[in-house]
Amino acid sequence: LVKREVTRVLTPGTVVEDSTLSAKTSNYLAAVCWHGGSKTGAAAWIDFSTGQWTGVQSKHQVQLWQWLIKIQPQEVLMPEGTELPEQAQVLRDKIQFCPYNGYFEPGRARERLLQAQDVASLTPLDLEDKPALVQACGALLAYLHTTQRCEDLSHLGQFQPIQPNRFLQLDEVTERNLELFQRLDGGKGPGTLWHALDRTLTPMGGRLLQQRLRQPWRDLRTITAHQGVVALLVDDDGLRQSLRERLDAVYDLERLTTRIFLGRCTPKDFIALRNSLKALPALQSLLEEDRQWPELLGQEKRAWDNLDDVRELLERSLVDAPPLVITEGGLFRHGFDPELDELLDLSEDGEGRLQELLHKEQQASSLPKLKLGYNRVFGYYFELSKAHKGPVPDHFIRRQTLVNAERYITEELKTIEDKVFSAAEKRKGLEYNLFQNLREQVAAHRERVMAVAGILARLDYWQGLAHAARQWEWSQPELHSGLDLRIIGGRHPAVEATQGRTDYIPNDVRIEGDDRVLLITGPNMAGKSTVLRQTAIICILAQIGSFVPAREGWIGLCDRIFTRVGASDNLAQGQSTFMVEMTETARILRQASRNSLVILDEIGRGTSTFDGLALAWAVVEDLVQRGHGGVRTLFATHYHELTDLEGQLPGVRNYNIAVKEWRGDIVFLRRLVPGPADRSYGIEVSQLAGVPQGVVKRAKAILAQLEEKSRGLRHTPEK
Amino acid sequence: LVKREVTRVLTPGTVVEDSTLSAKTSNYLAAVCWHGGSKTGAAAWIDFSTGQWTGVQSKHQVQLWQWLIKIQPQEVLMPEGTELPEQAQVLRDKIQFCPYNGYFEPGRARERLLQAQDVASLTPLDLEDKPALVQACGALLAYLHTTQRCEDLSHLGQFQPIQPNRFLQLDEVTERNLELFQRLDGGKGPGTLWHALDRTLTPMGGRLLQQRLRQPWRDLRTITAHQGVVALLVDDDGLRQSLRERLDAVYDLERLTTRIFLGRCTPKDFIALRNSLKALPALQSLLEEDRQWPELLGQEKRAWDNLDDVRELLERSLVDAPPLVITEGGLFRHGFDPELDELLDLSEDGEGRLQELLHKEQQASSLPKLKLGYNRVFGYYFELSKAHKGPVPDHFIRRQTLVNAERYITEELKTIEDKVFSAAEKRKGLEYNLFQNLREQVAAHRERVMAVAGILARLDYWQGLAHAARQWEWSQPELHSGLDLRIIGGRHPAVEATQGRTDYIPNDVRIEGDDRVLLITGPNMAGKSTVLRQTAIICILAQIGSFVPAREGWIGLCDRIFTRVGASDNLAQGQSTFMVEMTETARILRQASRNSLVILDEIGRGTSTFDGLALAWAVVEDLVQRGHGGVRTLFATHYHELTDLEGQLPGVRNYNIAVKEWRGDIVFLRRLVPGPADRSYGIEVSQLAGVPQGVVKRAKAILAQLEEKSRGLRHTPEK
Repeated sequence: LVKREVTRVLTPGTVVEDSTLSAKTSNYLAAVCWHGGSKTGAAAWIDFSTGQWTGVQSKHQVQLWQWLIKIQPQEVLMPEGTELPEQAQVLRDKIQFCPYNGYFEPGRARERLLQAQDVASLTPLDLEDKPALVQACGALLAYLHTTQRCEDLSHLGQFQPIQPNRFLQLDEVTERNLELFQRLDGGKGPGTLWHALDRTLTPMGGRLLQQRLRQPWRDLRTITAHQGVVALLVDDDGLRQSLRERLDAVYDLERLTTRIFLGRCTPKDFIALRNSLKALPALQSLLEEDRQWPELLGQEKRAWDNLDDVRELLERSLVDAPPLVITEGGLFRHGFDPELDELLDLSEDGEGRLQELLHKEQQASSLPKLKLGYNRVFGYYFELSKAHKGPVPDHFIRRQTLVNAERYITEELKTIEDKVFSAAEKRKGLEYNLFQNLREQVAAHRERVMAVAGILARLDYWQGLAHAARQWEWSQPELHSGLDLRIIGGRHPAVEATQGRTDYIPNDVRIEGDDRVLLITGPNMAGKSTVLRQTAIICILAQIGSFVPAREGWIGLCDRIFTRVGASDNLAQGQSTFMVEMTETARILRQASRNSLVILDEIGRGTSTFDGLALAWAVVEDLVQRGHGGVRTLFATHYHELTDLEGQLPGVRNYNIAVKEWRGDIVFLRRLVPGPADRSYGIEVSQLAGVPQGVVKRAKAILAQLEEKSRGLRHTPEK
Repeated sequence: LVKREVTRVLTPGTVVEDSTLSAKTSNYLAAVCWHGGSKTGAAAWIDFSTGQWTGVQSKHQVQLWQWLIKIQPQEVLMPEGTELPEQAQVLRDKIQFCPYNGYFEPGRARERLLQAQDVASLTPLDLEDKPALVQACGALLAYLHTTQRCEDLSHLGQFQPIQPNRFLQLDEVTERNLELFQRLDGGKGPGTLWHALDRTLTPMGGRLLQQRLRQPWRDLRTITAHQGVVALLVDDDGLRQSLRERLDAVYDLERLTTRIFLGRCTPKDFIALRNSLKALPALQSLLEEDRQWPELLGQEKRAWDNLDDVRELLERSLVDAPPLVITEGGLFRHGFDPELDELLDLSEDGEGRLQELLHKEQQASSLPKLKLGYNRVFGYYFELSKAHKGPVPDHFIRRQTLVNAERYITEELKTIEDKVFSAAEKRKGLEYNLFQNLREQVAAHRERVMAVAGILARLDYWQGLAHAARQWEWSQPELHSGLDLRIIGGRHPAVEATQGRTDYIPNDVRIEGDDRVLLITGPNMAGKSTVLRQTAIICILAQIGSFVPAREGWIGLCDRIFTRVGASDNLAQGQSTFMVEMTETARILRQASRNSLVILDEIGRGTSTFDGLALAWAVVEDLVQRGHGGVRTLFATHYHELTDLEGQLPGVRNYNIAVKEWRGDIVFLRRLVPGPADRSYGIEVSQLAGVPQGVVKRAKAILAQLEEKSRGLRHTPEK
């Protein structure tokens, strides 16, 4: 009965169904091309489930792949015959090679893009000078055409190229090292910044927060404006709570709308849409309150649309709890469609007539115990218990004999039954058609719904940041465009969330005036890494407009944040731990600017003692000289030899994490204080870790002898 | 029409549907309990989709969690009010707290277990002396009862407790460090041993391989027997290929059978079962070949069951391509059920009568252009194009007017239509019932199907190992119960698979006679870590009966393999890199026995120079003295000072990875040779990594001065 044809090819990058998507994560299909000759290339990516897309053109192939690794696309299209560069190996499983001509050919790509965006030239898309990016976009569109079998891609939003200079750049290494979204062990959840930060209530708000955390702002005015809204919502608990209650009722409007537009929706989607729309008037009334709103909120208020017509249509048409499928009827309310009402009456009338018939037969044949029954195999039947021994009327046809009863049908019974079934069958068909109509009507309002979804995403973004700030008692940082960085009572949000507030010692970090490079020494376990990472995280939070986990923050905006922490090797790619470490260090030394923030943890650890010390030394010297007076750097090290640099090199300051020895035990104070550390306490830590007593004792003896012999080694190399 | 009730609660640990399961990965629901007082506890886990379950009782809580972390359960049941220990934090998201009384209470747990396994006492389950394990099993059963709403759990296999002593123990740290299933970055696929090793073709075979790789054998006879089968299949390409072709047609018999038993199957499952069973006779005929089979294959041959009756039933009943749902009919073949045939005839006859009626009306009214049509809303109708301008018969009732045509119905048309619809409706009901019957019939053969699934899994296991051995040109190792370990021309299978054979230099590793501790020095990037890991991997492969990536292997069986490699910290749990390193080292020093293999990479790296050196030194001394003559150890280090130990400590041998300096460049020969390394070449590597020239030059100068001053430091500490 149903005509079957291929209506689309399911691919991981083009899914739109909720069941296979993570609500707060965008699901990207990406395309990338690179021209070795002109050293130009581009990457573009689209979340087909929301219609949002963007991309970047670059002269550095490695940058393109850094972007792709950051966004974690489900599929990456590449022209056939091109090679996957080394640094892209982690995405190897996601690559789809496509014919150059069909997908990346410039002329066709341009045409496809103009058609899909319904524009006459590339200028409004800011793409006229980005031919490679046009190619990448073209490949995306070609792939969507092919797999989705739909020529109409008008639900896609406007393509907007990324402008890297407008954002704080966090490369994928930094994102991983700081455990923004995933722990270093690859897991999600507790231990990540995301877990502590995300208090959004809608999928749209969650995706916006995720996008912003990947690309914090760099413009002081923008950040301050958003921070202002967050501050308002931090202060006004009542307003925030009202907002939260209402947002909590909102489903994923973006993906709902996309599914409805593409015709891949179920009745459940419409109910979700209806329930979401019901929340709008209450949200509007919050914004209508007579008070002085920040400009950003004022904008949302002016753009507000309650979508009353769409909501009314949905309320009028669909029943409260429709079935999951659209082919079985039961979707529409009585009164919505006259023809449907007629069929409903007919089948209900049929039921009445069956009862009448039963009554008639009971009377006529004096069988008051005669019952009417139904099963899926025989349809309707009369049943007579065997207790009744007398004869049945002649027109009864025996259909089935049970242990305790006989079942009969009659001509008349079957005639009525046929009518009932027939009406039921037609009703299904009619409802199916009505549903398609409804879908088209709602789809026509796509743009309005998307606009509202955008407003709700931003409201959710602000309230989420405000809620997190309240929950964790964060404070509003002051931002400025200078270089000073002063964090008083700073905490690491993920560590605090996992370990609890009381176990946690806040720390001050000051990069002020000419002191740009802080050398941090101190024993293991004291918390050096935590201080380093929390400083970077606080800067990131500040630049997304959020409050920060510190008592006080005075933060000079960063253009990039670099981190080289932890150690992970990559055997399969043939890179040793030390090679990875040096590659990351090299990147920092080549790219860091005056406005960057650099976090270096234990440089030189992966090689022999002297090699490592010499390299660490040279790196510090280099950072102090860069960017007219040094790049802001936190440099944690076990090479106590480096602490001699304070005083010799301008701009270097020693800090250490305080430790007390008390009756032979060490007590970690976990507090950053000026000055160099005296020892590392490595052997004491190994004892805490459970290394057998004999081994610990022997190690202490060896250490004593080593130290004895090393006197005189600690002098600064001459310049 | 359909009665709705809660039939089960969907939980991640009890899924049986393929769409949400990974084919070759078991999906575990686990339960764990721990009695602090008696220091006893147990963990049990079940793959509900296959009915396989097992568990372990232990006096060490940490061991229980090591098991759970290894098997990666989807859900872990714990008694309410108990605390999650530190090392179990990674499973935090998976924990379900359950009431002690309802789930873990010993008496009820025992009863539940006896009932589910249909036994009178715990003895046949080998559980009479494992009360904690009985509790854990009871909790699993209680949870299944509650969530699955099914009292009948007789499809579960027999519970078999794990006997750790029968297997090579690989703790979860080692499994991760060696990248058996996941890369260190958390990713799967290329770079893992699994990716290079798994050549199984059925889900059952894949799961068996995964289970074996987590628990290789320790018994020489068992291993040799399996190795013999693998060797036969390596040699006989024809046999292996035939086996592969036939196995390739087999679906997931275990999960199919479980779904069928639980009544959660679709027609697709039966078709998959039917197709799988079709492959059996051809597989049997392979085993029937007249040749000398190894005993293990002889066993399978004797236990063979072609399941002809089940296959015939499925062939006779279901059509070739049934629809996805069971409520819409179209499932069964003509001739399978007389009553169904009747209904089919009726609805087909109805179609014939419609055509007759059309013909009659065409004749009677002289309207040869009259057509019969159908749509879902109106059902059947007569259509007359507007080209015909004459009158229509009186008994025609106008139903719809189109641009080019009019549509009519008649009383007679509707009567026939009613009959057709009615027959179609009943047919759906009948087929639904027939399908339930068929399901029950097939479910009754569950045990036989599971037995065949087991045989196929083992065949697939053997051929998979043989196929991998052929593909990668592995060789058959010789195993023995002594301590000597000699690997000639060994390679790292995952690195080779990623980088290709030609780029890869094989290496020899010899732990022979009294030389038990190999100290490996050499520059960064030279491949120390690779040699270390490949040695452990080769031992593991040998102990699952596989060939190994080496020209020659003479392998003394291991009881445990320990690794301490790489570095990963765990900030959120408050453990520094160094603390993690020392905790793992402590575990090794406390647990390694004479028959263990220990892999230590760069111990002491996370603390200050002298602390680290002293600790590494003491660790080597300890390992050399353990287990009556030292524990077999590969110890890679950058502390060249340690190489002085050769000659001073019996059992220590120096090796290094050779490097040549050639015209100022360094050439990595990647070959392990006896003797200590002279330098680390860290600065040269940093140059390769892209560190700016100025920094490199300065580092060299600093290094020269450091070395100058350090003369005389290198003396062995006195004992």
